[in-house]
Amino acid sequence: MANGGPEIEQLIQLLARLPGLGPRSARRAVLQLIKKKEQLMIPLSAALDRAVEAVRTCEVCGNVDTISPCSICSDPRRGDSGMLIVVEDVADLWALERAGVGAVRYHVLGGVLSPLDGIGPDDISINELIARAHEFREIVLAVNATVEGQTTAHYIMDRLGETEIKVSRLAHGVPVGGELDYLDEGTLSQALKARTAI
Amino acid sequence: MANGGPEIEQLIQLLARLPGLGPRSARRAVLQLIKKKEQLMIPLSAALDRAVEAVRTCEVCGNVDTISPCSICSDPRRGDSGMLIVVEDVADLWALERAGVGAVRYHVLGGVLSPLDGIGPDDISINELIARAHEFREIVLAVNATVEGQTTAHYIMDRLGETEIKVSRLAHGVPVGGELDYLDEGTLSQALKARTAI
Repeated sequence: MANGGPEIEQLIQLLARLPGLGPRSARRAVLQLIKKKEQLMIPLSAALDRAVEAVRTCEVCGNVDTISPCSICSDPRRGDSGMLIVVEDVADLWALERAGVGAVRYHVLGGVLSPLDGIGPDDISINELIARAHEFREIVLAVNATVEGQTTAHYIMDRLGETEIKVSRLAHGVPVGGELDYLDEGTLSQALKARTAI
Repeated sequence: MANGGPEIEQLIQLLARLPGLGPRSARRAVLQLIKKKEQLMIPLSAALDRAVEAVRTCEVCGNVDTISPCSICSDPRRGDSGMLIVVEDVADLWALERAGVGAVRYHVLGGVLSPLDGIGPDDISINELIARAHEFREIVLAVNATVEGQTTAHYIMDRLGETEIKVSRLAHGVPVGGELDYLDEGTLSQALKARTAI
């Protein structure tokens, strides 16, 4: 391949490992970067340098931020609600923040229990969750509605044991804007069971 | 947004400007970068730094490479065929190289004539093409089969004028592996006209 030397080839291969980009789109992305060197390539290079330096994992909740404890954990107004939302992943935390769920705190498990993959309670941050749970009045287990997610939720409830803390999960139902005939039967029957008066 | 501070936010916004990535996939890409800091984020940062330093446009053909003249222009074996392939864009050059079209040379126009967009002959590298055309025995106008592409091809043939150089274009026809009933009528009728004996 005479496609512009090893520097360009290596950039393509690294970009192709990002989710959403394959080899073909990585090549298009690199051409775009080269074409817009001043407006895109140099700023992106600088932003990556800064991020490599600055980004760290929050020692309290597992969020990623440039400070630890992260900006959510160190915001005193976040404590008033007494609500802790437990998520599998930082992406889930960001999704809830974008949804504007309010002045809550989070705990990022960093995965779910999965005996088949050899992932046990000590491999994700469940002990850390149990240790800080008593600081909150309500814990929302916002894990995914998968078998592993639900197993993890049950395990956490067992570990919390007899406690004054209210434990809840996200509601199942019809997505806002969703069409009924594209929904699976499980979701539909849950949505009917949990119907609300209007 | 408390999504991890300005460094992360800026990285998301820059990645979202790459073709193939929107805001949502850019966010997933950044999370992947943070999660794989050692294996992905730091190497990508270093590869971008090197590319910013090293990548330049070939002064002869318009290809991008880390040397100028580029590795294609400076490869003596590439001259033997006497064939120059004229393309609109570096992406087209790379596509032809991947197809293994052989020991040819290229000329990247950097666009096509488009009077409506105010793009005239001096805005793309047509003068440079005319200046080096006499070094070749055959010029293949591999511009896209669009109105602007064909206009550009005609203009180049006019400018070449009376000459010994053979000028050709890519064949039209059925893509290899393509299904007839997905093809447009123009391609199908061209493919029938240009049918070959078997």
